[in-house]
Amino acid sequence: MDVTRITLDENELPKRWYNIAADLPTPLDPPLNPQTKEPITPDDLSAIFPMSLIKQEMSTDRWIDIPGEVRDIYALWRPTPLYRAMRLEKALKTPARIYYKWEGVSPPGSHKPNTAVAQTYYNAKAGIERIATETGAGQWGSALSFATRLFDLECTVYMVRISYDQKLYRRVMMETWGGKVFPSPSNKTECGRRFLAEAPDTTGSLGMAISEAVEDAATHEDTNYALGSVLNHVMLHQTVIGLEIQKQFEIAEETPDVMFGCVGGGSNFAGAVFPYIGDTLQGKADSPRIVSCEPASCPTLTKGLYAYDFGDTGKMTPLLKMYTLGHDFVPAGIHAGGLRYHGNSPLLSKLTHEGYMDAVACKQTDVFKSALLFARTEGFILAPETAHCVHSVVEEALRCRQTGEEKVLFFCGSGHGDFDLVAYDDYLNGRIVDPEEPTEAIKRSISKLPEV
Amino acid sequence: MDVTRITLDENELPKRWYNIAADLPTPLDPPLNPQTKEPITPDDLSAIFPMSLIKQEMSTDRWIDIPGEVRDIYALWRPTPLYRAMRLEKALKTPARIYYKWEGVSPPGSHKPNTAVAQTYYNAKAGIERIATETGAGQWGSALSFATRLFDLECTVYMVRISYDQKLYRRVMMETWGGKVFPSPSNKTECGRRFLAEAPDTTGSLGMAISEAVEDAATHEDTNYALGSVLNHVMLHQTVIGLEIQKQFEIAEETPDVMFGCVGGGSNFAGAVFPYIGDTLQGKADSPRIVSCEPASCPTLTKGLYAYDFGDTGKMTPLLKMYTLGHDFVPAGIHAGGLRYHGNSPLLSKLTHEGYMDAVACKQTDVFKSALLFARTEGFILAPETAHCVHSVVEEALRCRQTGEEKVLFFCGSGHGDFDLVAYDDYLNGRIVDPEEPTEAIKRSISKLPEV
Repeated sequence: MDVTRITLDENELPKRWYNIAADLPTPLDPPLNPQTKEPITPDDLSAIFPMSLIKQEMSTDRWIDIPGEVRDIYALWRPTPLYRAMRLEKALKTPARIYYKWEGVSPPGSHKPNTAVAQTYYNAKAGIERIATETGAGQWGSALSFATRLFDLECTVYMVRISYDQKLYRRVMMETWGGKVFPSPSNKTECGRRFLAEAPDTTGSLGMAISEAVEDAATHEDTNYALGSVLNHVMLHQTVIGLEIQKQFEIAEETPDVMFGCVGGGSNFAGAVFPYIGDTLQGKADSPRIVSCEPASCPTLTKGLYAYDFGDTGKMTPLLKMYTLGHDFVPAGIHAGGLRYHGNSPLLSKLTHEGYMDAVACKQTDVFKSALLFARTEGFILAPETAHCVHSVVEEALRCRQTGEEKVLFFCGSGHGDFDLVAYDDYLNGRIVDPEEPTEAIKRSISKLPEV
Repeated sequence: MDVTRITLDENELPKRWYNIAADLPTPLDPPLNPQTKEPITPDDLSAIFPMSLIKQEMSTDRWIDIPGEVRDIYALWRPTPLYRAMRLEKALKTPARIYYKWEGVSPPGSHKPNTAVAQTYYNAKAGIERIATETGAGQWGSALSFATRLFDLECTVYMVRISYDQKLYRRVMMETWGGKVFPSPSNKTECGRRFLAEAPDTTGSLGMAISEAVEDAATHEDTNYALGSVLNHVMLHQTVIGLEIQKQFEIAEETPDVMFGCVGGGSNFAGAVFPYIGDTLQGKADSPRIVSCEPASCPTLTKGLYAYDFGDTGKMTPLLKMYTLGHDFVPAGIHAGGLRYHGNSPLLSKLTHEGYMDAVACKQTDVFKSALLFARTEGFILAPETAHCVHSVVEEALRCRQTGEEKVLFFCGSGHGDFDLVAYDDYLNGRIVDPEEPTEAIKRSISKLPEV
């Protein structure tokens, strides 16, 4: 079927999220209390999360109903389109057929609101009045500001100071939706004041911002914390992406042979592919090849260790079993800020460790080269994060050109690049470079993993 | 039907544009050669436009086929969704039902590519290798850069210098698609060099940029000129919007009572409503009330004269019969740059003059107040231009609340505000003001209209 864009009606919006924990061959290793090294209990988390989300985090039910109020808001932009990238295929002279899911149509411009809306709903139901969070590049802070506004909750965003200073547009987007944005470290929290006292001129870091948001939530009765990736319930909420993709490929009468996605914390790609892996785990279908695409300068899945580690630099979170470069690994300042994370989703890590998913690392210059080709053939200007999987698709399509294979390739278009145009400007003017591969730094930080 | 978003399949994309010139009660007054004051001939225009577009400009055929190659590109984002703004209705406690068409989903983020793609197609067919144009805020330049890239044409954009300096993101968007962007006045053209000699520190103006682009096109065999609004063929191409709206309202089982749109040159609103006015002119249906929304600081339709005037400040264009504030009227520097135009579409002007359309003028502070309400209820952050009609919808919905009328209100969502967030920042921080009404300035510039 030669169609550019496969849309679904509002009534085809999935009614349930798919929980892959139900189908894992062996259970996920539990998060551990960093003091006792014992599995954490629901009560350990109740100071910062509502019980409904804690239950989802630990659930092994295969299907979890999407509340009507959440679906009503999803309907503002979902179901999102599945595209056939025919102009890109033509430019590559490939016999492969290339498809992508386009999450850039949401008001904040990415997949992040799929979980921001759900998390806000459950917090609102629990009587919470304010949510605190951190944001680096601003995608997650935007999504949560958007979601909290629609449920009349307040939102406090600790934004890494260097982003706060440089990314005016992202900050104003959050404020337009009513989010209160503070440069982190701030003097709003005890740990923030400590960070500032230690280094008054610090540019901040995601690790510091997480610490501030968690402290804010833990020390205020009416306030909870929300995380935009990594955790199981975040992966769960994102499966709305993959469930739509399955319907859309059915309409297109195609089956994907290889699926690519960019992976930082893992949520957009997990959302896209967990329903496919689930079918495999249930013996219902052969799995496509599934490939996570990460930056060569932060190669968590390709060069990291599968081990227990902290989720944050400040060592405040539970220990998670995941691929990690070590909690004090500091990635180079590449433009794909959303992929600069030392760890990864425990679910995605386990599935990678057990061979259900592959991973590749991409160089920044290659990534922008492919992003430019995509913009100039398909029109959409992608976020630098998304551009990582586009590059992998381009490479695979060129291999197909050599072998003559008519493979069906897919990538998850996690977000648009409207606020990343400075990065494109840098690329167009030869100012994008590839940081040195961080082999020694990884060795050092991995040697400091906590003992379990 | 309580649905948030009415989508159409790709195969419901209109196959023909609707040409309202076929149904006008009396013919449009022709454009005049400014020297001879005689109606211009196709040959007068052939130095800068391909003959196919000149024919469309003068055509009185009711339907004009959309070429397959143009529809293939439209399919990247069209049909666009029609939304029911239920959250806005609820916030306003109005019995009115509010709908909007959302053109912000195109790669450049507005309705402009509907004509950019068509114009580029006809130029490519005519063997033209490069298109020159001007851009103010950057929406049109982005759309043409996008369109020319997909047809492998070159694109030269003369961007008003102050925008070039202030709107980095817009400039880089054009360059990402391969557009060559020069701050205007530039030293690339004779008139540009003259403007620079006269005022080396000028911030530039749309009038100067038009002169440069026209000169560039007129003096290069392989180069044509393209205009993003005002002309008949531009209105024609935009009717794809209204034809989709008619299908979508049919699905919703609704008929709009009042239709609002923002009007600068007039193209997005003409595109949305001409099919409706056409049905009225053909005696097929009663017309909804149709209301153009313009800025109080540039009140072309509400305070201008219906007369022949130049399309540009530099007096290079043919004389057009239209509502005008006078070709040397300089509007205050409001954020809705796309509405800062002294003239208007001759077609939209005639229909307004003959009572088929109304017009209202809105104050900038009111406009941003309503834009913020929209963002905080419906999620999408709109361009300041679009926000003008949102404000009019809000006012009408509040009137309905008083009268209890269950009217169906519509507005055309012409584009997103991702690149206008500085304006929202100004509003949130009390830096948006209402310029004084330009009564005296209008008197002065209208007194200088050319004699015909």
